[in-house]
Amino acid sequence: MVDGKIDPWGAVDIGKYDKNFEQFGVKRFPEEWKNKLDHHLFRRGIVIAHRDFDKIVSRIENKQPFIMMTGIATSGYMHFGHKIIVDLVNFFKKKGARTYFGIADIDAYCSRADEKVPTLQAAKEFAVNNLANVLALGLTKKDVYVQSRMPSRYYEFTFELSKKITASTFEGIYGHLDLGKVSANLLQYADILHPQLKEFEGKMPSVTPVGMDQDPNIKSARDLVHRLKYPMELPSSIYPAHEPGLKEGMKMSSSIPESAIFLTDSPESAKVKIMKAFSGGKVTVEEHRKLGGDPEVDRAYQMLKYHHPDDKKVEKIFHDFKSGKLLSGELKEICAEFVLKFLKEHQKKYKKFEPVAREMVFGE
Amino acid sequence: MVDGKIDPWGAVDIGKYDKNFEQFGVKRFPEEWKNKLDHHLFRRGIVIAHRDFDKIVSRIENKQPFIMMTGIATSGYMHFGHKIIVDLVNFFKKKGARTYFGIADIDAYCSRADEKVPTLQAAKEFAVNNLANVLALGLTKKDVYVQSRMPSRYYEFTFELSKKITASTFEGIYGHLDLGKVSANLLQYADILHPQLKEFEGKMPSVTPVGMDQDPNIKSARDLVHRLKYPMELPSSIYPAHEPGLKEGMKMSSSIPESAIFLTDSPESAKVKIMKAFSGGKVTVEEHRKLGGDPEVDRAYQMLKYHHPDDKKVEKIFHDFKSGKLLSGELKEICAEFVLKFLKEHQKKYKKFEPVAREMVFGE
Repeated sequence: MVDGKIDPWGAVDIGKYDKNFEQFGVKRFPEEWKNKLDHHLFRRGIVIAHRDFDKIVSRIENKQPFIMMTGIATSGYMHFGHKIIVDLVNFFKKKGARTYFGIADIDAYCSRADEKVPTLQAAKEFAVNNLANVLALGLTKKDVYVQSRMPSRYYEFTFELSKKITASTFEGIYGHLDLGKVSANLLQYADILHPQLKEFEGKMPSVTPVGMDQDPNIKSARDLVHRLKYPMELPSSIYPAHEPGLKEGMKMSSSIPESAIFLTDSPESAKVKIMKAFSGGKVTVEEHRKLGGDPEVDRAYQMLKYHHPDDKKVEKIFHDFKSGKLLSGELKEICAEFVLKFLKEHQKKYKKFEPVAREMVFGE
Repeated sequence: MVDGKIDPWGAVDIGKYDKNFEQFGVKRFPEEWKNKLDHHLFRRGIVIAHRDFDKIVSRIENKQPFIMMTGIATSGYMHFGHKIIVDLVNFFKKKGARTYFGIADIDAYCSRADEKVPTLQAAKEFAVNNLANVLALGLTKKDVYVQSRMPSRYYEFTFELSKKITASTFEGIYGHLDLGKVSANLLQYADILHPQLKEFEGKMPSVTPVGMDQDPNIKSARDLVHRLKYPMELPSSIYPAHEPGLKEGMKMSSSIPESAIFLTDSPESAKVKIMKAFSGGKVTVEEHRKLGGDPEVDRAYQMLKYHHPDDKKVEKIFHDFKSGKLLSGELKEICAEFVLKFLKEHQKKYKKFEPVAREMVFGE
């Protein structure tokens, strides 16, 4: 089994956010849950932190229902970094969660610069891509909602929230007062909280897997629970580390196409990206054989660590690469084989779900 | 025909807003339209100002359709001051308008202090009252929409607008940055503009009758048209004077029950309010007979001026009161008779429409 140290990004993230952990009540994801929860994202320490996840562990153990709420702001095409969130959703679904996966198109339009998402229409085109990917990854139509096509209660609730937060609180949290971003954040709070309204599931523990950079929204949503008159549990959250990008010093990001493998990348293009990815191997074969590679920075290895479900296989690759037995090019080939096989199967499903997604986003 | 000077409130309003007229492009309502438009609110100079109303006059003359958009924020019970707006809507409907009358419950909750509208539920109860009154005044279900029960396109558009206005513009216009009020204003802009979206009527001249204090919202909505990518006409507006309250020195206001006759006041209570209303009569009968009364400050006379449809009758009352022939008590009796007859008939209809309104606000 790969150990904690293997994930430099997780470690970096934890270090960077350590102050927040103490200050805001985010806790390190405890060792004892890593093996209790039967998924490699927990076992491999990729889920680094949580808020009140105890409640969800207890619901799972007692086979009680809970809400699994997360989503994606549709400001680009979906890549492997996003897939992690959907993998977690699928895990919780199996454990009895009532799933709310938001395709946040209004949020994406309101919060992004005009260069990135010039119109609401553009956000909706990304929404079709993101939604078709999510469906191809195994969520059903019922698990998913499109933010721009919700019942009025959802929007009414969003406006209601605006009365419960002051402009100065907002400026304090986010350091700005851009009204588009205020809208986007209010929508995110509504996303997190609305499943607990009586018109949806009613009061019930909920968990939101989300990037650590989104924690201010989790915190704000929790603060709002205290100021609202609705019966609600404080929402729980878990924080998977950001998946490392294929290039050095960046996370996988849809703004930097060469950093990410998109779920709709052609297998050829994906292979090129993997072969060009930042390597933890040594410069010469001799040196590599002698000194071994560094899987902790190797992007091909990281892809496998984040996505390949077989612990034994991933562990063996780790040790073989570290010992110098496995060369960088060979590791990339293994990674490419895994990714390409996945993409081919995924894209067949994507093609099937694309018209379904389009109908859900744009209506008939 | 009563002359311009007869309406001291109109005159005061015009005076007070004269600077705005010049600064922002609001124009005095021109004499030539007063008789062209067949309604006492125009003839009697109660509609004091406009923006781009030329467009609407031309649509009416050419029998072309136009949008009539207005509404009410549901923060209290509906009174005669609000009735003026509905009277104008009925006028425009007859002239071929496509009517959008918004029952603005979310707006009312977001913009009002907690003492006045403590919950969204409270705003919705007022909405039932306001909507049942509007239906009893002759609008059909199709003419009216409940803000909290709109198709998602309306809300999406509201959020879209938030990206087109800056926090500092907002602070400049309204002198504050209360996020609840920001929401309420964004909703008002959406109310004014959404009928021109392709999902509703498409690009078409529109007119909004509204109190002069709401002009900043008209101006902002017009500014937004320039910043949006939708094909839209700049919305037109007309400004009826605020109806004087029954007490001295105030407009009719739902916050001060004794200043207003509510459309659901019992005839007995309405009569008491009228008999106690601020009078333009002299202290003694002798003095009144000798010097005459002052209809321009007399609240019973003003009620008739704002609501009684018969010009000749109102004119005669004006002269009889001014000459001293008609005593203050007699004028109040005439007013009470008119108001009570109206209320009895109105309230029969109100009773019929109340369950319809409740269904429209709360659903089945």
